[in-house]
Amino acid sequence: MNDAKTSTTAYAPGSIGNVGPGLDILGLAVAGAGDTVTVRRTGAAGVTILDPGHPELPADPERHTAALAAREVCRLAGANEAIGMELRVQKGLPLAGGQGGSAASAVAGAVAANAVLGQPLCSNEMIQACLTAETLVAGRHADNIAPSLLGGLVLIRSLEPVEVISIPVPPDLWIVLAHPNQTLRTEEGRARLPQQIPRDVALKQAAHVAALVAGSASNDLDLMGRALVDIIAEPARAPLLPGFVEAKAAALLAGALGCSISGSGPTAFAFAATEALALGVARAMGDAYGALGINSHTRVTQPDLAGARLIDRDPQPEVIVCR
Amino acid sequence: MNDAKTSTTAYAPGSIGNVGPGLDILGLAVAGAGDTVTVRRTGAAGVTILDPGHPELPADPERHTAALAAREVCRLAGANEAIGMELRVQKGLPLAGGQGGSAASAVAGAVAANAVLGQPLCSNEMIQACLTAETLVAGRHADNIAPSLLGGLVLIRSLEPVEVISIPVPPDLWIVLAHPNQTLRTEEGRARLPQQIPRDVALKQAAHVAALVAGSASNDLDLMGRALVDIIAEPARAPLLPGFVEAKAAALLAGALGCSISGSGPTAFAFAATEALALGVARAMGDAYGALGINSHTRVTQPDLAGARLIDRDPQPEVIVCR
Repeated sequence: MNDAKTSTTAYAPGSIGNVGPGLDILGLAVAGAGDTVTVRRTGAAGVTILDPGHPELPADPERHTAALAAREVCRLAGANEAIGMELRVQKGLPLAGGQGGSAASAVAGAVAANAVLGQPLCSNEMIQACLTAETLVAGRHADNIAPSLLGGLVLIRSLEPVEVISIPVPPDLWIVLAHPNQTLRTEEGRARLPQQIPRDVALKQAAHVAALVAGSASNDLDLMGRALVDIIAEPARAPLLPGFVEAKAAALLAGALGCSISGSGPTAFAFAATEALALGVARAMGDAYGALGINSHTRVTQPDLAGARLIDRDPQPEVIVCR
Repeated sequence: MNDAKTSTTAYAPGSIGNVGPGLDILGLAVAGAGDTVTVRRTGAAGVTILDPGHPELPADPERHTAALAAREVCRLAGANEAIGMELRVQKGLPLAGGQGGSAASAVAGAVAANAVLGQPLCSNEMIQACLTAETLVAGRHADNIAPSLLGGLVLIRSLEPVEVISIPVPPDLWIVLAHPNQTLRTEEGRARLPQQIPRDVALKQAAHVAALVAGSASNDLDLMGRALVDIIAEPARAPLLPGFVEAKAAALLAGALGCSISGSGPTAFAFAATEALALGVARAMGDAYGALGINSHTRVTQPDLAGARLIDRDPQPEVIVCR
């Protein structure tokens, strides 16, 4: 499609990064809240931000993922340097919440920028553009970017070159997100990760990731639950997240298939096999935080299978998948 | 089935352990050569070996995996201590070849012993019995045992408790085994493995395992090839295996999807998408070893999907899968 237009708006869903054992390599797009970016082509060269989407977000395009991704899209597309873009960002996702907000802003910015340029980039190039943006604020990993762009559960096999694999997701998978009133910067969560991992731990974690992927692909929710075991990141990060251990125990007691930290937190997520169970799990997690005097916001949802899309003209995803 | 009989014979196929990145956790049963064990119930208590199957294998039942596994089957089944068993082993697999020979002997011994007892054990209990045997000679891992017992590609999610996951295998997957005239004891191969693994290496390896499983389950041979990347064990073991690097390069040049070390070697294996390609790969690998003055034996085959079976009465597998 080369129907470039002067202004367009893209929505990108939030996502769970580090899905259980899938540290840096497995992400799941989540329906509901997401970020929205409107890009308008201008005569003046360069990318500028008219609205960063939140008072705490920088209006400096060098420091906002939506603008960085849009600029990288222009660069990768070989667009004329005289092209200018103005961005308006609407944040539907919390800042530093562990729900993939910075990635969603990057993805929505990239998708909208790509659209106003006439869709020159394919999905892997879009991921590349967003990676450049995310690297600045959240480290070089694509486990939020790829699901936010493509939807569903996505395995990141490789970043150089970019190769991502969409894994089928059980239609009955329900997701609970529990966001306690805490913030944890992604860098702080990452700093706690061990640099060296004992071999047996690394191999067990690999077995869990592969089992989680196998369970999802074969519609085996129980297996997904048993495989939602993170013995690398969760033990390192849980001490930074008051109430997580209690909320996880409550979730499992209420019938969750499994529970872990979304991204580097503070949001915790749980899987459940029915909406009714998910609602009970959400209540139990909220109560567990509440009993410790921690306010929290819980949400029951399902995977977002569509991924990022233009919302001012077409409900379908507009990304051209790399072949 | 409780049709216990006094004598029966079981066959168990060889297998590729450590399939590419799947160190200790992913194994593939290979059609063709395998080990065969005949078990006869006797009046005298205890397990004895009438024929260990090879002059270099011990007739001492405390040191032969077939006998150790048979004895453990009796113990787990709670069989009367007065029960005795005589074993005759036929080795179809090379010793210390990296083709899962010790596991196949254990599995065939366990399956035959279980049959003469009237099938008291289910598959996970059988794996448990074989693990006890394998631990003595090859370390505590089930990535040869499980595929030899169940057939196909098997992911070992957990040993405690035993949980294994059968992954669908592409019907067009062809396997080349190239066995150079070298021996490498499993312990020696294991001793080279690093105890600590840098986090980024561990996560990349996990991504490759999950991608290999996803590729196999979705019949994507090209993805299987791209994911057949082992950055932990292969770099550590390749220096112990003269000619491996050259044989691998020759395999890839001849059109193999991927190539790595089978188990801890010395056998190298390659995947190919057609029989014709596999034959060419086998020739190329043999030539590469030959150019270095190393004799080798190559074999072109496909996965064994049936796994271990009784061969004196029924061509079907007789293992009752745990539910």
